[in-house]
Amino acid sequence: MQRIIMYRNHTCGELRLANLGETVTLAGWVQRIRKMGGMTFIDLRDRYGITQLVFNQEVDAELCERANHLGREYVLQIVGKVAERSAKNNQLPTGDIEIIVSELNVLNAAETPPFTIEDETDGGDDIRMQYRYLDLRRNPVRANLELRHKMAFEVRRYLDAQGFLEVETPVLIKSTPEGARDFVVPSRMNRGQFYALPQSPQTFKQLLMVSGFDRYFQIVKCFRDEDLRADRQPEFTQIDCEMSFVDQEDVLQLFENMSRHLFKTIKNVDLDAFPRMTWHDAMKYYGSDKPDTRFEMKFVELMDILKGHGFPVFDSAAYVGGICAKGAASYTRKQLDALTDYVKRPQIGAKGMVYARVEADGTVKSSVDKFYTQEVLQSLKTAMQAEPGDLILILSGDDVQKSRKQLCELRLEVASQLGLRDKNKFSCLWVVDFPLFEWDEETQRFYAMHHPFTAPKPEDIHLLDSDPGAVRANAYDMVVNGVEVGGGSIRIFDKTLQAKMFALLGFTPEKAEEQFGFLMNAFKYGAPPHGGLAYGLDRFVSLFAGLDSIRDCIAFPKNNQGRDVMIDAPSPIDTEQLDELSLKIDIKA
Amino acid sequence: MQRIIMYRNHTCGELRLANLGETVTLAGWVQRIRKMGGMTFIDLRDRYGITQLVFNQEVDAELCERANHLGREYVLQIVGKVAERSAKNNQLPTGDIEIIVSELNVLNAAETPPFTIEDETDGGDDIRMQYRYLDLRRNPVRANLELRHKMAFEVRRYLDAQGFLEVETPVLIKSTPEGARDFVVPSRMNRGQFYALPQSPQTFKQLLMVSGFDRYFQIVKCFRDEDLRADRQPEFTQIDCEMSFVDQEDVLQLFENMSRHLFKTIKNVDLDAFPRMTWHDAMKYYGSDKPDTRFEMKFVELMDILKGHGFPVFDSAAYVGGICAKGAASYTRKQLDALTDYVKRPQIGAKGMVYARVEADGTVKSSVDKFYTQEVLQSLKTAMQAEPGDLILILSGDDVQKSRKQLCELRLEVASQLGLRDKNKFSCLWVVDFPLFEWDEETQRFYAMHHPFTAPKPEDIHLLDSDPGAVRANAYDMVVNGVEVGGGSIRIFDKTLQAKMFALLGFTPEKAEEQFGFLMNAFKYGAPPHGGLAYGLDRFVSLFAGLDSIRDCIAFPKNNQGRDVMIDAPSPIDTEQLDELSLKIDIKA
Repeated sequence: MQRIIMYRNHTCGELRLANLGETVTLAGWVQRIRKMGGMTFIDLRDRYGITQLVFNQEVDAELCERANHLGREYVLQIVGKVAERSAKNNQLPTGDIEIIVSELNVLNAAETPPFTIEDETDGGDDIRMQYRYLDLRRNPVRANLELRHKMAFEVRRYLDAQGFLEVETPVLIKSTPEGARDFVVPSRMNRGQFYALPQSPQTFKQLLMVSGFDRYFQIVKCFRDEDLRADRQPEFTQIDCEMSFVDQEDVLQLFENMSRHLFKTIKNVDLDAFPRMTWHDAMKYYGSDKPDTRFEMKFVELMDILKGHGFPVFDSAAYVGGICAKGAASYTRKQLDALTDYVKRPQIGAKGMVYARVEADGTVKSSVDKFYTQEVLQSLKTAMQAEPGDLILILSGDDVQKSRKQLCELRLEVASQLGLRDKNKFSCLWVVDFPLFEWDEETQRFYAMHHPFTAPKPEDIHLLDSDPGAVRANAYDMVVNGVEVGGGSIRIFDKTLQAKMFALLGFTPEKAEEQFGFLMNAFKYGAPPHGGLAYGLDRFVSLFAGLDSIRDCIAFPKNNQGRDVMIDAPSPIDTEQLDELSLKIDIKA
Repeated sequence: MQRIIMYRNHTCGELRLANLGETVTLAGWVQRIRKMGGMTFIDLRDRYGITQLVFNQEVDAELCERANHLGREYVLQIVGKVAERSAKNNQLPTGDIEIIVSELNVLNAAETPPFTIEDETDGGDDIRMQYRYLDLRRNPVRANLELRHKMAFEVRRYLDAQGFLEVETPVLIKSTPEGARDFVVPSRMNRGQFYALPQSPQTFKQLLMVSGFDRYFQIVKCFRDEDLRADRQPEFTQIDCEMSFVDQEDVLQLFENMSRHLFKTIKNVDLDAFPRMTWHDAMKYYGSDKPDTRFEMKFVELMDILKGHGFPVFDSAAYVGGICAKGAASYTRKQLDALTDYVKRPQIGAKGMVYARVEADGTVKSSVDKFYTQEVLQSLKTAMQAEPGDLILILSGDDVQKSRKQLCELRLEVASQLGLRDKNKFSCLWVVDFPLFEWDEETQRFYAMHHPFTAPKPEDIHLLDSDPGAVRANAYDMVVNGVEVGGGSIRIFDKTLQAKMFALLGFTPEKAEEQFGFLMNAFKYGAPPHGGLAYGLDRFVSLFAGLDSIRDCIAFPKNNQGRDVMIDAPSPIDTEQLDELSLKIDIKA
């Protein structure tokens, strides 16, 4: 075929000294124009890099004049000869060469963008989101999406090699009353009826195990219509996996290996075997089911040492616990007050903070000295394994779990201040043995901590009736740097045990049948033992990218109100469209 | 870690003579139980194959008795020793060996399935869909999904190697009034407002080109709420691609290479370069924009030869055209009547069919002999390039396009009867030069044949105002065996031309702004020339699998009413859920 146009024969990132003298055609965007003497220099940018173009007034005045009238973000096609630069730029892979331009073709003009297309932009969050297509031109944003592509691809390559099949499960599924946060989709062909968008493909992947698929995965969009926190999106992506004829150990090993493979391949980070920590220990020593283990600073419970000495706050507390900040005895009063204010913020809710410094001579000076003898403070020091120069921080409260959560926040804040939360360091672990149930005070009933299909540990099954709160599950989370990256469980595959679970969770047999009938029915025909897990791809990528929010590793994210401000969605729809769906809008005051 | 259970150390597909004497643990489903003398044989099945288990009454009567009480589809775990079979089965990769079982562990019992789990099942479509999880146990169904996994993975590997980035575009987007077949999603957080599910990621991929992503792809679910035909699903999967700084030739070459790579890697089929056919020729010679070119049988227009000889049907026709069925002169009167009935069915709508046989002596005998001399019939023979033994079939009508479509159906039917549509033969081509617009008689206006972003051919732009119907587009379809597998176009990247297109399509500037404002706005900031295409993955896979419908390469498909009969979706939702969404159902009589 005859080619009418060939837009380019090289990218803007690939020319080197080896190409000297070649006549090349490039295309890209104007990053920058500089005039120096009779010369005009243009940095031409594409996804692959930047190449310097040169126009010389003396050689071709008209061409140079045209170059002088270009603007930022114009789209150009040029033909020119590769020449060696006199002043090389070793910051740039193409920095040894430049292109002496002989032909200039403006493919498209550009208005001045509302913010600079630079690594550090002058655009605020709102305007960047409104013009997301321009924000995506910036290297760091595009790099995040390149990383995302690479991670997803590497996950697929790894799982394919392990015999996993990627199977697409439906997006238009069934709404369940329990799925209070389901997005629903009215059906035009089935008036008055609705599909729901999946919060996860859980039941479908279990059905695939019943079908004998043996090893399933899917990188899949999931949906949740809930009030959004900083790190949530109404649509999010999971790496969803399930395996048959496995126990917990098989799942942990396979996905630990996959994770290590990703860290190695993509970040060139070698990781040791992941430690395992029980949920109970995670709560006790870190006040969190997703402890940040990049640093120690474990909780020490101090009830035995600090209660009963006349300090009313501790004496009446259900929990007294401390952390030891190594080398932080130099914290000023001002810094300590700021920390106290930090834990007293309503989001954290501590009543106050007690601190104790270990002086150079080994003596301990605390903010509650008048209640404690030096002897007691020395016992404190020993319990905390504190040394001269260390700072001990203590919280207390009436509710053990709440106090631990507060101490967890304090621990993370202090660690941040001490520079212990290095984004280039990765500390991974498995948190295991989660409780099967979670008690809800408000509704006075148990809820499934993971989901109703999670298997109890066989050795705890006898407690299901007598002490459900004590039953541990074969459930596990993969935690990296204090972020829950993935989680899963071994599933119940016995229909009698599954029926019992539904009953314990307060489902009537009718309700269970209505909602999960097809799954329980499937279990009648020979369900294999199975289990799996799901990773949050958005979080996994943002962790690899060192981002604080998942938003910047999503091409077109929504804001905290669930809006896409670029396309202006959601939005009202026409009455005719509503009529077709047999719907009326009925906004109550 | 201590392993409590290890469910298996081999699959049911991998043991060979080389494993003789090994003690192995297998797990799987009971495919079949046979008793012979004092022996019981069980075929144990998993995804990987079938292995024969042996129980010997004389060796272990109790174990054998337990085996005798198992049923089809029970889930077993067994331990046993690999032994050589006396009667080998060379149909089975594991057919040289069997397992002398020493331990039998029933992991799960099974009720008798409602249909047989065999390659050829006794289950009808409805019951198979209701129990899809059992249907998926059948080898041919699972093989389709394995093929789907393999094709999707190979597409990703290929495009990754070509520098394409997979970018996820949003599923919750904006509804447009033009998108009459949009599924909409009410937002709980934005009362009275709706998202829409994408019919394709078209605008987002174009925005990614504006963003400089250069090469984008995505294997992505798309949605259309329309009356379903046999080969449509409300949710379907596309391989969606877009490239910058390309013309049509670049796109065709890259994706032709990708397709050839898939055929080679997955089907081991070597394909030549794909022929190109203009839309005009496809309509003229095949009566279809997706001609099945596994066989010739091109249309020959016969107006010059057959009009004006007194046969009123042809004399008054706007179109008279024929096909030559090689070697089909032996068709009986009954077969010919059946063909006539076929083209007269309301779905096809021809008024009748004329035929002419070329006898062994070269004379032509036709069904309208009384109107035509042998001389005219000889001219017909020459025009049709017919030889002794061939059968000429002729249709005519008042509407050229309709007659061609009828002749197309006849051509396909005859080819099927003659065995010319071999599912193991693949004939690929590009149909190019589609018209930019399609005239709609009912609404008396032009519609975009592809979509409003498709670029006209530069040489036809001058016709936009004077003769829009004659403007050809830089649009192309990839057609395989008469199936449109993919299609795309070069896009408009000039905002002025885009505005003109919207105007020609009857959009007011306000309406265009409301619906596509963000895209037109993006084009102000430096849009590169770009184009792309999308493959229908479901169709691509079903073509590779030799399936007539896309349904069997989808894990959990919906039926013709858009229902998932397995999970019973869509379904009514609770009033509270509707209240939360500020919606009321309002079904008009």
